[in-house]
Amino acid sequence: MLIIGERINSTRKSIDRAVRTRDVEFIRQEATNQVNAGAHMLDVNCGTLEAQEEPAAMEWLVQTVQAAVDVPLCIDSPNYKALAAGLAVHRGKAMINSISGETERYKNVLPLVKEYGAAVVALCTDDRGIPASLDQALEVGLKLVGNLLEAGVPVDDIFFDPLVRSVATNPETVLVTLRLMEEMSARFPGLHFVSGLSNVSFGLPERRHLNRAYAVMSMASGLDAVIADPLDRTLMALIYATEALLNKDRFCMQYIRCYQEGKLKG
Amino acid sequence: MLIIGERINSTRKSIDRAVRTRDVEFIRQEATNQVNAGAHMLDVNCGTLEAQEEPAAMEWLVQTVQAAVDVPLCIDSPNYKALAAGLAVHRGKAMINSISGETERYKNVLPLVKEYGAAVVALCTDDRGIPASLDQALEVGLKLVGNLLEAGVPVDDIFFDPLVRSVATNPETVLVTLRLMEEMSARFPGLHFVSGLSNVSFGLPERRHLNRAYAVMSMASGLDAVIADPLDRTLMALIYATEALLNKDRFCMQYIRCYQEGKLKG
Repeated sequence: MLIIGERINSTRKSIDRAVRTRDVEFIRQEATNQVNAGAHMLDVNCGTLEAQEEPAAMEWLVQTVQAAVDVPLCIDSPNYKALAAGLAVHRGKAMINSISGETERYKNVLPLVKEYGAAVVALCTDDRGIPASLDQALEVGLKLVGNLLEAGVPVDDIFFDPLVRSVATNPETVLVTLRLMEEMSARFPGLHFVSGLSNVSFGLPERRHLNRAYAVMSMASGLDAVIADPLDRTLMALIYATEALLNKDRFCMQYIRCYQEGKLKG
Repeated sequence: MLIIGERINSTRKSIDRAVRTRDVEFIRQEATNQVNAGAHMLDVNCGTLEAQEEPAAMEWLVQTVQAAVDVPLCIDSPNYKALAAGLAVHRGKAMINSISGETERYKNVLPLVKEYGAAVVALCTDDRGIPASLDQALEVGLKLVGNLLEAGVPVDDIFFDPLVRSVATNPETVLVTLRLMEEMSARFPGLHFVSGLSNVSFGLPERRHLNRAYAVMSMASGLDAVIADPLDRTLMALIYATEALLNKDRFCMQYIRCYQEGKLKG
């Protein structure tokens, strides 16, 4: 399971301030904490900045985080100039967050994926918006992943995001995304699946229980990457447990190591 | 989701003592605590007593628990005389735990199911032991449930237990049980699925994470009854969250009510 730490995102006020003031120490600490807690990759997003300031901020953010921790980054922006600026200074293989079936975004982001040999989050949406039914989602997903493969992106670099919605307003959304992952997995062996956890609980109280349960059941349907808060110890313990249950943790060695390191407490 | 409280089981030393000394107040408290925490039914098991003492103890236990709380009981013993003694004094519709494909057990327990119109836990095992592969398990399950239906037991009264083993020694066990529930559900619409949670984590540390994750993923594959400790608030919160995610909690009303009652804290 690829754990992508979500905390360096300027929708959090403290991160917005740290990016605007170029507070190296604050960002370094957020990066270090997440990697120490088990993140394998860090998402970096400074999308609250003005469009013309975002590329320079992203460049600074990528360099600052990679000076602090030795993990690849998931460069996260709807602004392809910010993506390009981050990719240009990234060390190693980056992930781009995100491409989609939207015409403009696809056209602008695909060249970056190719130029940098990056992995990419592929959102299941197109110019018509997020598909509501399984059939529509499958149509959008098949086309998007098919196009990426045809364009020469290796399947191992594609992280398909089924785009779960809030269960409060879309009661069928989880059933649709679980089935969508299973269907896409059958069509494209080797395709990866990624999801942010928090959308699913939008508008409901005590959201962490919903986010955690969604992580577990999605992993059983093929999810192998997650954008989440690695400082949520209960979530992380559930993820390690789920890998053991799904026979993805040989001899439960990871689970037992986490226990020995005190990561399963609480 | 039917929550069957597991705590009144004489493998717990305090329960063994309370049953032997006929400690009404202790049993009453264990019963009340579980129902207050959300249990819909209580399992009662005094199988650590000597075989000839167990029927009288079970009779006392059923009467004592039903004097304390107004829920049906899951009468749990491999000793059919203890089952019969418990059933004879039970008020309302009981559940019997358990029948199986084992010749002796099937022959002795089926008449009790019929006589008392009880629901019954049907364990996926037979005289050859617990099946190891999905194919074998499916063969055993099809035969057992088929026989019960043929004997006139309504499908709505059958709670099929896929008998998960410890993932520490059987790495494929969860994958097999998830698939087994999906296959059995397709063959027998309306069949219920029940599981004890704790077997899956036997031999591993910090077992609660494994038990909780197993509950969530099993619910996504059809589990609709669980024998578990309702005092585990994190587990209960995950179960309520999972029901909301799987569209089994209309308008998330149960989840929101649990929040309002303070049951989603921690």
